Amino acid sequence: MDDVAVRMIEGSFGQILVLTLDIVGTFAFAVSGASAGVKRELDLFGVLLLSFSAATAGGIVRDMLIGAIPPAALSDWRYLATALVAGAMTFWCNPLIDRLRNPVQLFDAAGLALFAVAGAQKALAYGLSPMMAALLGMLTGIGGGIVRDLLLAGVPSVLRSELYAVAALAGAIVVVSADVLQLHAAVAALLGAASCFVLRLIAIRYRIRLPVSKATRKPQ
Amino acid sequence: MDDVAVRMIEGSFGQILVLTLDIVGTFAFAVSGASAGVKRELDLFGVLLLSFSAATAGGIVRDMLIGAIPPAALSDWRYLATALVAGAMTFWCNPLIDRLRNPVQLFDAAGLALFAVAGAQKALAYGLSPMMAALLGMLTGIGGGIVRDLLLAGVPSVLRSELYAVAALAGAIVVVSADVLQLHAAVAALLGAASCFVLRLIAIRYRIRLPVSKATRKPQ
Amino acid sequence: MDDVAVRMIEGSFGQILVLTLDIVGTFAFAVSGASAGVKRELDLFGVLLLSFSAATAGGIVRDMLIGAIPPAALSDWRYLATALVAGAMTFWCNPLIDRLRNPVQLFDAAGLALFAVAGAQKALAYGLSPMMAALLGMLTGIGGGIVRDLLLAGVPSVLRSELYAVAALAGAIVVVSADVLQLHAAVAALLGAASCFVLRLIAIRYRIRLPVSKATRKPQ
Repeated sequence: MDDVAVRMIEGSFGQILVLTLDIVGTFAFAVSGASAGVKRELDLFGVLLLSFSAATAGGIVRDMLIGAIPPAALSDWRYLATALVAGAMTFWCNPLIDRLRNPVQLFDAAGLALFAVAGAQKALAYGLSPMMAALLGMLTGIGGGIVRDLLLAGVPSVLRSELYAVAALAGAIVVVSADVLQLHAAVAALLGAASCFVLRLIAIRYRIRLPVSKATRKPQ
Repeated sequence: MDDVAVRMIEGSFGQILVLTLDIVGTFAFAVSGASAGVKRELDLFGVLLLSFSAATAGGIVRDMLIGAIPPAALSDWRYLATALVAGAMTFWCNPLIDRLRNPVQLFDAAGLALFAVAGAQKALAYGLSPMMAALLGMLTGIGGGIVRDLLLAGVPSVLRSELYAVAALAGAIVVVSADVLQLHAAVAALLGAASCFVLRLIAIRYRIRLPVSKATRKPQ
Repeated sequence: MDDVAVRMIEGSFGQILVLTLDIVGTFAFAVSGASAGVKRELDLFGVLLLSFSAATAGGIVRDMLIGAIPPAALSDWRYLATALVAGAMTFWCNPLIDRLRNPVQLFDAAGLALFAVAGAQKALAYGLSPMMAALLGMLTGIGGGIVRDLLLAGVPSVLRSELYAVAALAGAIVVVSADVLQLHAAVAALLGAASCFVLRLIAIRYRIRLPVSKATRKPQ
């Protein structure tokens, strides 16, 4: 097999990898958005809209920033279908999902990990520098949650949560480093997503937070 | 007349149609944004800014998503002029507009209908698939109201209102279906805008809402 | 020296000018965003994220609207570095910055002036009409503050503040007029930034506001 063919297969493998990460991440964020909407007693369409917005916002912003127009989430029907199925499932089967301790947070963590990885890999594929690819991966990861929280008129949880953006950045940095070390893209994705997801869950479990500025602490 | 000439006239007719729908929709959303601003006691410039944002946000997002850069609302002075005239009128002649039962809602419904139709037609013209054109029409329609409500720090009414996004989607679907059936673009626009506007007004009048998830209802 | 060389030097001078204005503006808005974050007791990463968002939002939106993809704030590491240094400084040296009467407002005014000017000049360089370049300059200036306030779930101060958007528009109009009069770009930038900054500070000092609509005033 010659070089060009190898590169084509790798290229197409890379595309399938980003697509798979994107779709699973879309599902996770859609459930997280829909759960938040059900809690706020939105009607069916409001829930679906929130689930679609949360699920696609990160990827749409990423695609607009790197010039992939129209964004995959709008030109490929599978994103829409995934978000709608996840939203409808959450709407009608909410009791099942509610048995999970904290469904918004759990699915949010999964979406965060998957989008951070997919964002970093797509940015690398579009020729951005490693540092910027890591930053864009983080933005892709946190974008969906920000839009979900803004639409419900709250302060985005990313600004308050335990190692939220930090975990997304960590996952994206793992992907970018693995790319520099020329590891296989699938290995990079697995390592990156696992680091982000585990780091986030540990931070939630043990309430790990970064310090706040001393300026705002009261004098003792 | 040969085929090319016909297509050019149709093309130019299509452009004039989108422009007309856009401008009237801009006027309607500008009045809706300005009315909301006057109610919240913003000063003159705040009212104009809100009226411009509400009037152009949907179209700007649409143009950025389909790659029509710079967006028409920024490159064509008629959008700005329309939004400013509508905003200034609302600011100084508010008592007149206030005689209408609920000016924000009424103009909002008109803007919703016009932008949903214009958005779907522009997306079709840029070669998006029918399903995505309908989705983009809906987004164009609801974008202005979302930005208006977010800037005033509220939950966007689209998430709570009676058949708001549903009406926009219905109007856009009518346009896309008419296009598939090869009806004339002007007929499609008229049918689409009328369906959306009437559906929204009926929903407001009779307080028609979609169901909320059973999960959030209290046990009887 | 022949014409082409002159133009190249001017072109490169123009780029350096926009870059310089952008970087100093980035620093100013980053301090403003970080100060707002420290006040709300965000943790270190939340403060850095808010400082990066406030510092780059205006420029990113400008670049996306004129089609400069990927936006300078993402492709050029100096923006990120500036925002992070400014954010970290604010986080750890907050007492120093707090001695200033109102650091958010002061740095915000500086960022407003610098971005309004940089936005108008970059828009002119991308061939937008003078009127649209002035409008885009204003949007670039006010964008960062809007994103900062939205992320903290407040009504953007631009809608309520003393001559905020007016000052940005004034600065951008000065730049555009100077360009029409063929003044040197550096002179234009200096005049524009000074007008915006001074106008904003005077408006804050003497609480100058534009009128609100009579419709909302209570009857006497």
